[in-house]
Amino acid sequence: MFSAKFQTFDETADPAASARRLASLRHNLKWDGVDGFVLPRADRHQNEYVPAGEERLAFLTGFTGSAGFLLVLPDKAVLFTDGRYTLQAREQTDPTLFTLVNSVEISPAKWFEQQTDHPGTRIGYDPWLHTAESIERLAKALEKPRWELVPLTENPVDEIWADRPAAPLGPVVLHDVRFAGETADDKLKRIAAEIGKQRADALVISDPHNVAWTFNIRGSDVAHTPLPLAFAVVPKNGRPALYIDGRKLSNDVRDRLSDLVDIREPDALTKDLSKLAATQATVLLDQATAADALGKVVAEAGGKVVRVADPVTALKAIKNPTEIAGAHAAQARDGAAMARFLAWFDREAPRGHLDEIAAVEALESFRRESGLLKDISFPSISGAGPNGAIVHYRVTQRTNRPIRPGELFLIDSGGQYEDGTTDITRTIAVGTPTDEMRSRFTQVLRGHIALARALFPDGISGAQLDTLARQYLWQAGVDFDHGTGHGVGSYLSVHEGPARISKLGTAPLKRGMILSNEPGYYKEGAFGIRIENLVLVVEAPHITGAEKPMNAFETITLAPIDARLIDVSQMTTDEIAWLDSYHARVAETVGPLVDKDTANWLAAATRPLLNS
Amino acid sequence: MFSAKFQTFDETADPAASARRLASLRHNLKWDGVDGFVLPRADRHQNEYVPAGEERLAFLTGFTGSAGFLLVLPDKAVLFTDGRYTLQAREQTDPTLFTLVNSVEISPAKWFEQQTDHPGTRIGYDPWLHTAESIERLAKALEKPRWELVPLTENPVDEIWADRPAAPLGPVVLHDVRFAGETADDKLKRIAAEIGKQRADALVISDPHNVAWTFNIRGSDVAHTPLPLAFAVVPKNGRPALYIDGRKLSNDVRDRLSDLVDIREPDALTKDLSKLAATQATVLLDQATAADALGKVVAEAGGKVVRVADPVTALKAIKNPTEIAGAHAAQARDGAAMARFLAWFDREAPRGHLDEIAAVEALESFRRESGLLKDISFPSISGAGPNGAIVHYRVTQRTNRPIRPGELFLIDSGGQYEDGTTDITRTIAVGTPTDEMRSRFTQVLRGHIALARALFPDGISGAQLDTLARQYLWQAGVDFDHGTGHGVGSYLSVHEGPARISKLGTAPLKRGMILSNEPGYYKEGAFGIRIENLVLVVEAPHITGAEKPMNAFETITLAPIDARLIDVSQMTTDEIAWLDSYHARVAETVGPLVDKDTANWLAAATRPLLNS
Repeated sequence: MFSAKFQTFDETADPAASARRLASLRHNLKWDGVDGFVLPRADRHQNEYVPAGEERLAFLTGFTGSAGFLLVLPDKAVLFTDGRYTLQAREQTDPTLFTLVNSVEISPAKWFEQQTDHPGTRIGYDPWLHTAESIERLAKALEKPRWELVPLTENPVDEIWADRPAAPLGPVVLHDVRFAGETADDKLKRIAAEIGKQRADALVISDPHNVAWTFNIRGSDVAHTPLPLAFAVVPKNGRPALYIDGRKLSNDVRDRLSDLVDIREPDALTKDLSKLAATQATVLLDQATAADALGKVVAEAGGKVVRVADPVTALKAIKNPTEIAGAHAAQARDGAAMARFLAWFDREAPRGHLDEIAAVEALESFRRESGLLKDISFPSISGAGPNGAIVHYRVTQRTNRPIRPGELFLIDSGGQYEDGTTDITRTIAVGTPTDEMRSRFTQVLRGHIALARALFPDGISGAQLDTLARQYLWQAGVDFDHGTGHGVGSYLSVHEGPARISKLGTAPLKRGMILSNEPGYYKEGAFGIRIENLVLVVEAPHITGAEKPMNAFETITLAPIDARLIDVSQMTTDEIAWLDSYHARVAETVGPLVDKDTANWLAAATRPLLNS
Repeated sequence: MFSAKFQTFDETADPAASARRLASLRHNLKWDGVDGFVLPRADRHQNEYVPAGEERLAFLTGFTGSAGFLLVLPDKAVLFTDGRYTLQAREQTDPTLFTLVNSVEISPAKWFEQQTDHPGTRIGYDPWLHTAESIERLAKALEKPRWELVPLTENPVDEIWADRPAAPLGPVVLHDVRFAGETADDKLKRIAAEIGKQRADALVISDPHNVAWTFNIRGSDVAHTPLPLAFAVVPKNGRPALYIDGRKLSNDVRDRLSDLVDIREPDALTKDLSKLAATQATVLLDQATAADALGKVVAEAGGKVVRVADPVTALKAIKNPTEIAGAHAAQARDGAAMARFLAWFDREAPRGHLDEIAAVEALESFRRESGLLKDISFPSISGAGPNGAIVHYRVTQRTNRPIRPGELFLIDSGGQYEDGTTDITRTIAVGTPTDEMRSRFTQVLRGHIALARALFPDGISGAQLDTLARQYLWQAGVDFDHGTGHGVGSYLSVHEGPARISKLGTAPLKRGMILSNEPGYYKEGAFGIRIENLVLVVEAPHITGAEKPMNAFETITLAPIDARLIDVSQMTTDEIAWLDSYHARVAETVGPLVDKDTANWLAAATRPLLNS
């Protein structure tokens, strides 16, 4: 799945509720001594998926998109959303209450800079929902109109939200070392060493993915990612502390965790941090996820804040041999479900009675039948015909489209298994594809193969490889508007930093990282193509005459690529050989795991194209 | 020529002189009230080539490299040089006087941070020789040991340099609009618009290349680049001022310039800037070249300094139709000289009596015989056998090597013509090359062709294309340690910003830019390969089915690539077709410009490889 956030879209606005809530909020803001309020769609961890009680933006405005920023002023309210959500925001919000602004054209900071009236306006914010950097950016923008940002102790939306859903209490499970490959104790030693390298006294882990990785725990507080919402503080010397609601811990889990970490209630975090900071401690805070409130606590108590990229993010990205073995097992299992799905689809689709939802349900059931699926890794994207060209498409009852012969069908999906997280996109011909479809598919495939076959030295970043995946599309005068690849976690988030394969991917690619390889092509109103496999960064095989070690991608996703969409005449012998060898590996690994009908289908779908 | 600076290397150290000078300097520093002094190898414009009177580093230390940084303390002196110059610095300096440090491993800032003794140490610097950014970096590093940076009004080296060469007085000539393609008046209007966009009142042009471009003038104050050393101040409204030694201007040139600019002595710059700043003006300073002293003058007089990338750099990089026509004419002329040279070399080299210097002299004389060569565009690199593998090699009487059959010969050179600046590298087989040489040459050539054939949308930077040139080398487990390409001026510097094709090239490539395409391969102690052409960014030819405009590179350098070094079996049909079509264009354009013998040689050297 490409790196774009999205969410269900069938909700309808309730203008009366929004008007009432907005009025209450404005009333309360006066009591807080401020004129306005800024509210991002965010929780205390800057999570991609947030629990229901953090959907303050939706509560106030009706807008349910995964990214947005609201500014409430006495006489107006401005909702900033990016291009993906322009339409949705218009449908879900009341135009008499909210002015909509495309944040790509005018960011909130830019909007503030353009104000000229009412110097002295005081804008409140909840310091738990913004990073320090974003607050600094806003504060700088507010210098122009001489407005002021004021941190509030209580979130004024929560005060008016009577039936606000309670924080989730998903039970925490231990992530066994036979999946994790390294004990929490050993991980903590490596983290302590990183803290020492930065000459600091402690690290606050504010990203729950990093908490989960560090302590080898998983949870179920948000959708699709097995996260326990929690903070941790790891000192250079001494026992770390885990800040988590005790009701998420069974006695057994609590006992096991207590061996190496103090279990503390979330409330205790700021008190403990203050105490630590009072010793003039130097505290590392993650620049991407640490709330502005955390830095304030440390600074006010006399500590020194150093903003860094949480070192756990880099450690977590390098999968160890156990995690890699787990990824291979998960991919074989997931590949078997995909093979069953693709075989089923090829049987059923030509009969003309399938639709997008039926396809998603079938695929999810094939995955579930493995008995090991914990969750899907993100909401499946299932797009027939023109719906395949909507990059962030999410099928709903309203948009559900029949799968018709002569069209392309794009399905982007993944599973969460204890031994690994998967993410795969296949584009399938229903009936006979047009020459245009085959030509575009082949251009996308050649880019996919160029990236899959790339060798590169240490230090090379994803930004430097991205062009390999786009070159044949550029030669044809077209492109795709999303990144080529993102990092993937190990039974964690399907979107994981620090590396990515896109213009913005400046982190070097290192052995042990798992990333997606997913170029695409989208023809609006007609069809969408994306070919996505996960790849593992490995040492390149021996090269005669080589002078320096090279890295390579090993493709670990195992599912056939639709040969009916390939124009072999456009491909080089090396490219066809790569595909044949990939298909041979798919047949060999997945074949033994599936029923006979699927095995027969798979043998046909993976037949070599070279000399055939 | 790849982007690395270098310089003659035959000078030998005079330890007695260095000891005497260092002692005098230390004595004077006391009078200036400081304990130490930092001295970069730089002039007031951060020029690549500097006049003799700016070679303070060489005067003090004996080290003549083009990049270095000296720190003088009461009890020691530390000379920082990068990896290219480690050997040279060791040979040229007295180890009892100077401690040598590799600046790639320990930068001056890092070195300062590691000091623990003598808090309160005062380090003097000449604010005209450092940019504000570099001073800020140093000042930050000095916080650790609690040392202090102190700007000095007079450079203490100049005070002890009795026979310091006077500033050069190269006559200024007008760069005719039939070469420049745009009047200075029109350029000034565009610059004023840029100043307005940035809401500023004036721009200080501190980069002499930008002064030369703006006023359509050229000079001869430094080697190889027709620069007049000068500053300019361009106001948003009103007449600009040019700060230049009046002795460089003939009456005629002065009269012509006076039509649009006030001519002022260099001394007047700070006074004028102070006066401007006193009106609370907002002044744009170039972050890359403006001396720290300039910012201080503006700030102290009450003006507001805004550090930017001088907008002239971006304007200058886009060549207009006249400059492009000039580049084509210059390339045809230069290609004719190259063809004569290559034909001559092929006749003479097998007889075994040539050496590197003879080759350079021959090539320069062929260029000179065009009657239009103003200068070479940089010191030629002429490397036979293992010398070709030294990336910054510069032949001297001491290193001069015979050109022997069985070896490769690499020659990187260029010319300054009024209508354009050229830069070309060819690698030539002398006698029969080995299979290894042919294989590596073919890998380099395939990368060169991949970049030359690339199509790419607007907004793409050189960093994103660099990999295209390296991919086949990486596949073979090798790489090259320099950028793939740099911008090139129009009868200006052979190294011009803002765009480049390298990991660091984040500026988008725009139509009208001229860059080099010069991948290479270097086998230490054995041979070097580089294939360099200049390319012009143009609109891609029409593509059926294209959805967005694409850009392409048009290769404008015209000289054969040595087919004896190509292993055609490694190349794709498309790659061979590109080479054949390039060679056809070389033959067609250059053939009519050369003597009959050369024309015959050229016809053979450009014979198509496909179906031959």
